[in-house]
Amino acid sequence: MKSDCDRLMSSRLLDAIVVFGPDGLGPVNAAFNYFVGGRHIVGLVIKKLGRPAVLIHGTMERDAAAETGLELINITRWPRKEIEQQFPDPFDARVEMNRRIFTDLGLTGRVGVYGIVDASSTLALVRELERKVPGLTLVAEGHRDLIQTARETKDADEIAAMAEVGQATCALVGEVRDWLRRHAVRDETLVRSDGRPLTIGDVKAFVRDRLTARELEGADFAFSIGRDAGVPHNHGNPADLVRLGRSIVFDIFPRRPGGYYHDVTRTWCLGYAPPEVEAAFRDVYDCFHAVVAMVGAPPIRTHRLQNATCDFFEKRGHPTIRQDPKLDHGYIHSLGHGLGLDVHEHPNSPTFTDTGAEIAPGVVYTVEPGLYYPDKGFGVRIEDTYVCDHDGKFRSLTPFPQDLVVPMG
Amino acid sequence: MKSDCDRLMSSRLLDAIVVFGPDGLGPVNAAFNYFVGGRHIVGLVIKKLGRPAVLIHGTMERDAAAETGLELINITRWPRKEIEQQFPDPFDARVEMNRRIFTDLGLTGRVGVYGIVDASSTLALVRELERKVPGLTLVAEGHRDLIQTARETKDADEIAAMAEVGQATCALVGEVRDWLRRHAVRDETLVRSDGRPLTIGDVKAFVRDRLTARELEGADFAFSIGRDAGVPHNHGNPADLVRLGRSIVFDIFPRRPGGYYHDVTRTWCLGYAPPEVEAAFRDVYDCFHAVVAMVGAPPIRTHRLQNATCDFFEKRGHPTIRQDPKLDHGYIHSLGHGLGLDVHEHPNSPTFTDTGAEIAPGVVYTVEPGLYYPDKGFGVRIEDTYVCDHDGKFRSLTPFPQDLVVPMG
Repeated sequence: MKSDCDRLMSSRLLDAIVVFGPDGLGPVNAAFNYFVGGRHIVGLVIKKLGRPAVLIHGTMERDAAAETGLELINITRWPRKEIEQQFPDPFDARVEMNRRIFTDLGLTGRVGVYGIVDASSTLALVRELERKVPGLTLVAEGHRDLIQTARETKDADEIAAMAEVGQATCALVGEVRDWLRRHAVRDETLVRSDGRPLTIGDVKAFVRDRLTARELEGADFAFSIGRDAGVPHNHGNPADLVRLGRSIVFDIFPRRPGGYYHDVTRTWCLGYAPPEVEAAFRDVYDCFHAVVAMVGAPPIRTHRLQNATCDFFEKRGHPTIRQDPKLDHGYIHSLGHGLGLDVHEHPNSPTFTDTGAEIAPGVVYTVEPGLYYPDKGFGVRIEDTYVCDHDGKFRSLTPFPQDLVVPMG
Repeated sequence: MKSDCDRLMSSRLLDAIVVFGPDGLGPVNAAFNYFVGGRHIVGLVIKKLGRPAVLIHGTMERDAAAETGLELINITRWPRKEIEQQFPDPFDARVEMNRRIFTDLGLTGRVGVYGIVDASSTLALVRELERKVPGLTLVAEGHRDLIQTARETKDADEIAAMAEVGQATCALVGEVRDWLRRHAVRDETLVRSDGRPLTIGDVKAFVRDRLTARELEGADFAFSIGRDAGVPHNHGNPADLVRLGRSIVFDIFPRRPGGYYHDVTRTWCLGYAPPEVEAAFRDVYDCFHAVVAMVGAPPIRTHRLQNATCDFFEKRGHPTIRQDPKLDHGYIHSLGHGLGLDVHEHPNSPTFTDTGAEIAPGVVYTVEPGLYYPDKGFGVRIEDTYVCDHDGKFRSLTPFPQDLVVPMG
């Protein structure tokens, strides 16, 4: 939680943290959005140990900056014109501007750097700043950095926001299911009102329309059928027809603009399910609920859950990634991932070692076992977003039935 | 252009370049998308001098990887399981995986690093790789890096793609204008069919709906009215009513998913324009066309164009950012920016020094002079996207009239 920042800074021996908020990267800059609440701002967040966070922003974004509730410094405090005339090379001017900011605000000692950035120019800037600001060490963290660690446990407001987007997402999934059911069928294929066969492209257009209507961002969902559903990261071929009795994997992970994500997957067979899809579905369904039941008394290591998932599927005769990392069928990914301002965040679910990743109070985590048989023309995945409440209860934020068969009509 | 890469590598004395393509950052990772064509892929692009680019990708994304036309290496070539068991710390395992990739593929000498990344973990990775791979120097570029430089001049295919998205965007802008015109008016305010006043929020919902219908991404547009139109980066207050005779700044910059952007701004007054908005509009309009006429025989430095814009506005009695970088009214930004896979790219339009940024054949550049008077309750901006063709002709990719007044009915 955000209130953990000072404690995490102390334990990392950091005197300050700096979060970059460069132009154009706002939509994916979760570390920066954690402080500015997803507003359209280009700037820099600076927090010294034991002090409130400060936002350095430009004049054009003064209104959005004021809404953050952070302490504000307008970048015009530093003389850009003078600096640019003294340093005609734009990079030299950028280094000088940052040198002055760091010096004037007393940023020395061990300063952690965070945020989503351009690799080349940021690496160059870091190298120059360390050379030019006396006593400055810019600290990089290889894994699960300070801000990721703070974000990993959600506070009550964040959990409420995630429950809300979960409800909105499930309402949308229901709308898509009901819309599919209303279609006529000809030769095992759904038919549009104009008589043409319904394609995955049509479904995608409908889903995008409903996302927009519900003010959700999430155009990158997967809606894939048949063989395509057997390759987890395929998003669906627009030309494919929507047929009865084929497995459809619908994986959608929308968010409120600049806000929190939800992540849900349903596998559907329209009309009826072939026996081998039904059998695979039963295995995934049973696995899902067995794993959820394991999270009885958190904290629990996610490596244990991933191992239990592999045990379960292997016992039912499916190959797993634990047996062979090159596998392209069977159970070939990990059980789930943390979710919040990023669609993938800590904790992850390591297959081969226990890295300490765990589900603890405040963690939001997806449970998403799946089985993939592209050569047999199908795939199955069930995914709910779960929260581990602050009282230790593990509960789904995805109020939507997991049924495989969607009856037509 | 992409075909410039080897020449640019030689002039920078680079033996290879590496472009990071991390999870979750695809939508904004222009350097990576330049090679993978905007497909959903997590991976690494590696190009050695004089050799074709190679994509390292995972098994789950093998289908998308195959579509890129790049040489492919599946990451399973390296033994992830063995590495993760040998290095239980996830960062140590990541370093070891990258050390093996760099070593096995002969990446030594001066290697440039690019792409949109997480600052903290990437900085840590770069520091460790330099320590662990003998003879490796990871080169950072502070300004206008190799890939940005290549991207700055578009080839014929890219220009055609940008013309196409320009047409689609203008069709949408026209649809919004015509939809506004069809509204009834009561007490100088547009009225919805249900009798309630039309709000900016309603307009935004309509625009988002039309973006979705046209398969354009660009939900972050500005549609702001009155005082809000006087603050360039305000995006419009959803509760504001749509009234006659107020300046509306509609700035929209959509793209095809994973593809090229268009950028257009129109200032509209519905029904009629007050004299002071009309006068400011006239100044912006005249300035726009004077500046466009200056780009007669490219190359031309953008600093010259920004200076000419300031000259023009100052002569007409408006304060400019050249006189005072802290200015919050008058002409307070720069003339324009390059456009492509990013909405802001090189060349920019520096105010205080000539950095060498220029419009040359192949460059796509926005022309967007504006005047802002928030205290008087209005702002005006006109923006077209221009391309400097390979025959040196500077032509608009924005086929839409610039008229201020939108007659109702």
